[in-house]
Amino acid sequence: MHAAAAQSAVDAKRLWDDLMTLAGFGARDDGGVCRHALSVEDMAARAWLTDKARERGYRIAADDAANLFITRPGRDDTLPPVLAGSHMDSQPAGGKFDGAYGVLAAFEALRALDNAGIETARPVACVAWTNEEGGRFHVPCTGSRAFATGAVPEPEQTDENGVPLAEALKTTLDAAPDVERIAPGFPIHAYIEPHIEQGPVLEREGLPVGVVTGIQGVRWFNVTVSGEPGHAGTVPHAVRRDAFQAALRAIGALNELMHDPDDIVRFTVGHVSVVPNSPNTIPASVTFSIDFRHPDAAVLDARASRIAGLVAEAVKPCTAVLTPTTVMQPVAFPDAVTQAIAAAADTAGLAHKQLASGAFHDAAHIAGVCPSGMIFIPCRGGLSHHPDEWATAEHCSAGARVLAGTLATLAG
Amino acid sequence: MHAAAAQSAVDAKRLWDDLMTLAGFGARDDGGVCRHALSVEDMAARAWLTDKARERGYRIAADDAANLFITRPGRDDTLPPVLAGSHMDSQPAGGKFDGAYGVLAAFEALRALDNAGIETARPVACVAWTNEEGGRFHVPCTGSRAFATGAVPEPEQTDENGVPLAEALKTTLDAAPDVERIAPGFPIHAYIEPHIEQGPVLEREGLPVGVVTGIQGVRWFNVTVSGEPGHAGTVPHAVRRDAFQAALRAIGALNELMHDPDDIVRFTVGHVSVVPNSPNTIPASVTFSIDFRHPDAAVLDARASRIAGLVAEAVKPCTAVLTPTTVMQPVAFPDAVTQAIAAAADTAGLAHKQLASGAFHDAAHIAGVCPSGMIFIPCRGGLSHHPDEWATAEHCSAGARVLAGTLATLAG
Repeated sequence: MHAAAAQSAVDAKRLWDDLMTLAGFGARDDGGVCRHALSVEDMAARAWLTDKARERGYRIAADDAANLFITRPGRDDTLPPVLAGSHMDSQPAGGKFDGAYGVLAAFEALRALDNAGIETARPVACVAWTNEEGGRFHVPCTGSRAFATGAVPEPEQTDENGVPLAEALKTTLDAAPDVERIAPGFPIHAYIEPHIEQGPVLEREGLPVGVVTGIQGVRWFNVTVSGEPGHAGTVPHAVRRDAFQAALRAIGALNELMHDPDDIVRFTVGHVSVVPNSPNTIPASVTFSIDFRHPDAAVLDARASRIAGLVAEAVKPCTAVLTPTTVMQPVAFPDAVTQAIAAAADTAGLAHKQLASGAFHDAAHIAGVCPSGMIFIPCRGGLSHHPDEWATAEHCSAGARVLAGTLATLAG
Repeated sequence: MHAAAAQSAVDAKRLWDDLMTLAGFGARDDGGVCRHALSVEDMAARAWLTDKARERGYRIAADDAANLFITRPGRDDTLPPVLAGSHMDSQPAGGKFDGAYGVLAAFEALRALDNAGIETARPVACVAWTNEEGGRFHVPCTGSRAFATGAVPEPEQTDENGVPLAEALKTTLDAAPDVERIAPGFPIHAYIEPHIEQGPVLEREGLPVGVVTGIQGVRWFNVTVSGEPGHAGTVPHAVRRDAFQAALRAIGALNELMHDPDDIVRFTVGHVSVVPNSPNTIPASVTFSIDFRHPDAAVLDARASRIAGLVAEAVKPCTAVLTPTTVMQPVAFPDAVTQAIAAAADTAGLAHKQLASGAFHDAAHIAGVCPSGMIFIPCRGGLSHHPDEWATAEHCSAGARVLAGTLATLAG
């Protein structure tokens, strides 16, 4: 009953106006947003949001990683809060919705609880995690990782102007002396992150809401194929060791390995570098990347373990070296959370489906410390990290209604 | 009889010493040579060679393109001479033999005729063509093209320091005021160019001499495949338009088109450029080069005409644009010349085989104005345009003996 009331109190226009206002902090001429973590634009955006929170009488706090917490009190403020949000930093040529939508949907959910006159047992809080994108400081998810581990990761890392992360954090925290300082990593009851899908599935299926079952795991590799350079006009094919043709055979074999009739496996060769890269010289070496993702760790392990052997065989008479560069384990969100989200969507009369997140999110780190989940809304063409990134006001509102209902339920 | 006497008079050590001396003009620390056309190193090399020619009493002349002609008189100097040679400029990171060998083998052949006391009916001349490599002035074969057409091609083109070709030619010609100036494009009876093979065939077959039947034709194309970028983690394969995977399919189809059981077709993809070339972004576009060569114009035309259709089909649902960038027609050397070369090799007791040149040479341009041919000697590993480029003294001498015999025969 609370859930339905909270959902009805979501104000679609208020949320949309906030999204467009926030997009003004770091607005690019092309309609996109460049709002690096802890930049002057980010600080201005934080001040704007805390001013709005202060008007509502919410508690405003920040931790050592400059994560911003806006808390609506519950009946028992000794109970761990239910937390929702995302991040406010963007890619250098980012859009208006990635991250920003999650923070503002959470803030709107708090206001909807107000407007519906709902008193929850637990506090409900909106969070903006610091530096999820890694655009300014290249190790991403600074805030959520600090929250999960209790310490800011790599505070000595510098931005391209040589400013250390620790200094940028201090500058941002000092700029808001009226914001309460708290330690990172307090107990929370549950965490929900609304986000644009960053993929085309919901749009293609005409669904306003995705109930995210988890975040798929990632394996990155570089493959360097070594052959023998030669004159394109003179060396017979029978004696060539053409590194590019060998790389093609290797990628062909990997395409077969990664084939998946259910289309859950993600396999991408996005980076290719040919040496010497001259039209009339047989390639001496080729380096290509492998981006391989799946929600199931067993599938990741089984297929990844076959890559080296397949590549070595396919590139003969060339040779190949396989180098793993990144491993991220899959995250599975608990049924209790996905069921709460699905129930809230049902209550709001919104069609939904379960899907795994193809991209990484702060929720992957918070899932290690409390039951977590995510709500996806469609984005136009599946596009993100781009000035043209777009979500409709209707879908933004739908996601906020599902969130408000979920928070009302989880907060009791 | 003259042929055998001339061949016996070739001095292997004298030729080898000259090769090593010439390699000192523009010597690189890595054992290679950087001798750009019309550079101070090239001018010094020219002065060294003309000094040696003067000692022999040969006629020394240069034309508007600074092509250097060293002529041993015949009984009747009104008859067009038999010409042999190559070029003295090198690649920036070139070797000791490409071009230099042809000039010095020709010069050695002139001396062998002297030593054998042979008087030929026609004059016999050694030529060093200007700027074959196009290393300093990027339009290659300046000298041989000027000789074939009567005019220096693109005299206004500049080197990377802004020096026009016309000015560099004047500087070089002015530096040798005692060299007779002649007009480009006088009648010649025949032209023979000795050269390292720049391929692995002779070395692999253990043959000291290649009788070159012609220079294969070349078709260059660029193919740009356009797809749709996307997040490597989120976009299902069923809806991807991955430009790199499409390019792989196109190249696979081209591999089939270019397949040749006789291994005469040369097909190389040497340049590949992926946009945006990021490991976790589905490639938006890919540009790759096609280098396709064959000695037979009909084969070139037939297969080249099928490229566009095959590529367009293979890249679906992506699209492709095919752009021809270079067309060079095949050159077939006349039987009279190849037979004269083969006969000279037989006389010298040197095993030989016929083969087409995979690389382009000055002879391709001179073939348009007189009966022409080429003599190949093996080079280690087929390597050229590289500091490690190498030919043995024995093979250098063998090629010079074949040349001396051929010149004695052709000059009567």
